[in-house]
Amino acid sequence: MIAEKMKNMVANSSAIRAMFEEGNRLAGIYGAENVYDFSLGNPNVAAPEAVKQAVRELIDEEDPVVLHGYTNSNSGYADVRETVAASLNQRFGTCFAGKNIVMTVGAAGGLNVILKSLINPGDEVIAFAPYFGEYRSYTNNYDGVLVEVSPNTENFQPKLDEFEQKLTPKTKAVIINTPNNPTGVVYSEETIQKLAAIMEAKQKEYGTDIFLISDEPYRELVYDGAEVPYLTKYYANTIVGYSYSKSLSLPGERIGYLVIPDEVADSGEVLAAANVATRILGFVNAPTLQQKVVAKCINEKTDISFYDRNREELYNGLKDCGFECIKPEGAFYLFVKSPVADEKEFCAAAKKYHILIVPGSSFACPGYVRLAYCVSHETIVNALPKFKELAKEYF
Amino acid sequence: MIAEKMKNMVANSSAIRAMFEEGNRLAGIYGAENVYDFSLGNPNVAAPEAVKQAVRELIDEEDPVVLHGYTNSNSGYADVRETVAASLNQRFGTCFAGKNIVMTVGAAGGLNVILKSLINPGDEVIAFAPYFGEYRSYTNNYDGVLVEVSPNTENFQPKLDEFEQKLTPKTKAVIINTPNNPTGVVYSEETIQKLAAIMEAKQKEYGTDIFLISDEPYRELVYDGAEVPYLTKYYANTIVGYSYSKSLSLPGERIGYLVIPDEVADSGEVLAAANVATRILGFVNAPTLQQKVVAKCINEKTDISFYDRNREELYNGLKDCGFECIKPEGAFYLFVKSPVADEKEFCAAAKKYHILIVPGSSFACPGYVRLAYCVSHETIVNALPKFKELAKEYF
Repeated sequence: MIAEKMKNMVANSSAIRAMFEEGNRLAGIYGAENVYDFSLGNPNVAAPEAVKQAVRELIDEEDPVVLHGYTNSNSGYADVRETVAASLNQRFGTCFAGKNIVMTVGAAGGLNVILKSLINPGDEVIAFAPYFGEYRSYTNNYDGVLVEVSPNTENFQPKLDEFEQKLTPKTKAVIINTPNNPTGVVYSEETIQKLAAIMEAKQKEYGTDIFLISDEPYRELVYDGAEVPYLTKYYANTIVGYSYSKSLSLPGERIGYLVIPDEVADSGEVLAAANVATRILGFVNAPTLQQKVVAKCINEKTDISFYDRNREELYNGLKDCGFECIKPEGAFYLFVKSPVADEKEFCAAAKKYHILIVPGSSFACPGYVRLAYCVSHETIVNALPKFKELAKEYF
Repeated sequence: MIAEKMKNMVANSSAIRAMFEEGNRLAGIYGAENVYDFSLGNPNVAAPEAVKQAVRELIDEEDPVVLHGYTNSNSGYADVRETVAASLNQRFGTCFAGKNIVMTVGAAGGLNVILKSLINPGDEVIAFAPYFGEYRSYTNNYDGVLVEVSPNTENFQPKLDEFEQKLTPKTKAVIINTPNNPTGVVYSEETIQKLAAIMEAKQKEYGTDIFLISDEPYRELVYDGAEVPYLTKYYANTIVGYSYSKSLSLPGERIGYLVIPDEVADSGEVLAAANVATRILGFVNAPTLQQKVVAKCINEKTDISFYDRNREELYNGLKDCGFECIKPEGAFYLFVKSPVADEKEFCAAAKKYHILIVPGSSFACPGYVRLAYCVSHETIVNALPKFKELAKEYF
C-alpha cells in the first residue's frame, strides 16, 4: 500500500530508534536504573535557565498574533535572522547579514531544505564514513546518490586521497559533520584546508560548483579547548546547517538555521530556493516562539561540563576494560572498536548485560559501536562493572 | 545552480506571498492604516488566553529534558496522541486510539508526510478546483501528478460527474478541503456521501485502494451552525490532516496531526511509513512544547465571532457594491467573481486603491479573486469605500 521507496525505509527503520524502544521495554521489566541505554543522542542536560526566562518574557510581553503567526518570510523573523548573523560575525569574523540566514526546523529540516534546493536526480552527494545514517535518506528524498568515502579507522579524520578520487562531474555536494557523530572527532584546521583545496581544484577541473554542506549540531560541544574551524572562511561554496538541539538542549523543539553566504555561487538564487523549499516541504517556517527564544538566548549554551565528566569516566573505564577507542574531542559519543568482527554480535552480547549500544554499520562503519554518553553520570558509573563483565567474554 | 525542479517553483513563487510582501511595501510608504491587505490567511485573532497559561504551566512544572526532548516515537508524545484521539472520539463518535494519531509540523507537514508515505512516481492525486495551490507542490515533491477537477462556479461544491471520470487505476489519493480555501464553502453531507460512493465503486472496479485525504485546518471555523461531516465515518480509506494554525491561532508554531484510522487499508504499514517519513523528511517530530500546549488546550478554540463579524460586513459591503460572491459558511475567505475575465487585471486595478487580493488562478480558478478577511474589522470598514470606488470602474 505504501510507496515503493518507503518500503525499504520502513523495513530498515533506524536501528537507533529500535534500540531506544528496546531500552524502554527493558526498563519496564528490570527498572530504568538497571538498564544502561547508550543508544540515542537525546541530550540529558536541561536547557539553560535563560530559556525558561525567555519563554516567560515572550509569552507575557509579545503580541500573540505576531509571536505565534506566520513569519513574513518563510526564512524566519527578520530580527531573529539579524541576531543570528551578528552573533556569527562576532564569534567567527564572518560578514553575514540577516538575509544569509534561513531559520529551519532543526538541522535535519535545514539539510532537507538545502538538498531539495540543490539536488537533481542522479546528482552525487559525498559523505565520509562513519556518518549519520540519515544523510542517505535525506539524499534519497531528492533522488540524489550518496557516495561514501571509506572510514579512516586510524584517527577518523577523513580519507582525503580517496575523497579526491570520488569527486566527479556529478558531485553536487559534500556533507561534513564536525564535531562528528558517531566518533566525536573534530576535523583539524589542516584537514579543512586540504579538503577545501581539493574541492577548489576539482571545481576548476570540471567547471562545476561543488557545495560543502557543514552539518554542525555539535559545534558548541567541544572539550579540552578544541577549536572547530568555521568553514565558510576556507571554502566559498560552503553552506552551514546548525541546530540548537544540543547547544541549548532543545532537540524536540526543532529549531536551527542554514547559513547561505553571499560567496556561494548564485547565492541569491540558492537563498530564494531555500525559502521556497521551506514552504513546499511543509515546514512553512521554523516554529516562531522558538525562533524568538534562541534569539534571546543567543549567548547561552548548555553546561557541557556534565558531558565532559561523562566522557572522561566512560572513556577511561572502557579503556581499563580493554576496549579500544579514540578519545573524542567533541559531541557526546564514543566510537568503540568491537572486539569481534561482527559488531552486531557484540551489541547482542552487550544487551545480555542490559547495555544498549548502536552498531557501527548504522553509520557505514561496521566493526565499531557507538555509545551516546548524554546519560546520567550514575548510568555510566553503574554500567562500568557490567562492561567489565562483558569484556571478560573477549579479553 | 539550483535544482531544475526548483527553478519553476522559484520563478512562480507563491503569488500570495508576493502580494503579502507588496502589502508590507505599500504600508511602509502610505502607512499600514491606508493599505487594505486581504492577501494572506494569517489569523488576526489572538490565541486563547489558555494557550498562555498552558505555556507558563509547562515551563514551570515540566522537566525541561522531557519537555524539549525528542519524543520516544517520531509520531509524538504518547499522552498527547491519546488526548487527541479521545477528544475526536468524544466529538465525532469515532474509535481512534493514540496510535492512530501522528503529530505533525502543521497540516502542511502532515500532507507531506502522508504523500511521501503513499505516492509512487506517476501516481495521480485528484484535487477539486478551486484548491490551495500548494497541493500541486506537495504532490510534485514525490513525483505524483496532480489531476484537477474543474470548478463548479454555481455553488463551489465539487463536480462529482467529472470527478468520477477522472478516477483512474493510477489514482492513489483524493484531497478535499472543507471548509474550503479559497471559497469558504462547506461540503454538504450529501456531497460527501456521493463522493464516498463513487470512490468505493471505483476501488472495486479497479481493485485498488484510493485514499481520501481530508485537509481540515478550517474545521473549527464555521458560521450559522453549519455542520462539517467527519469523513472517516463515510469512507474507510480516509486520512485526516489537521492543524491548530487557525483553531488556536498558532500558524507559526507548526502544530497539527494526521489521523490514520485502523479502517485504512494496511493501516499498520501506513502508520509505520508516516512515522518514518516524519523522521526522514527532517521534521523528526512536531515541536514538543506545542504538542503539550495543544493537549492542554484540547477543548479551547479561538473566538470566531470576530471572523463572523468581518464575514458579514465584507460580504454585505461587496454585494452592495455590485460584486458577486457566494456567502461563505466557513474558513475566513471570500471568493469573489472578477468583473472582468482576466482577474489579474482586476487585482491590478484594486492595487491602485491599496487593496490587495489574490487572483483565482493561484487556486486553479481564474476569473475569481480571494479575499482573506482575517484582518482587523477597521480594515474592512475602511476598505469598503475603496471597494465602492473600484466597483465604479466596472458597474
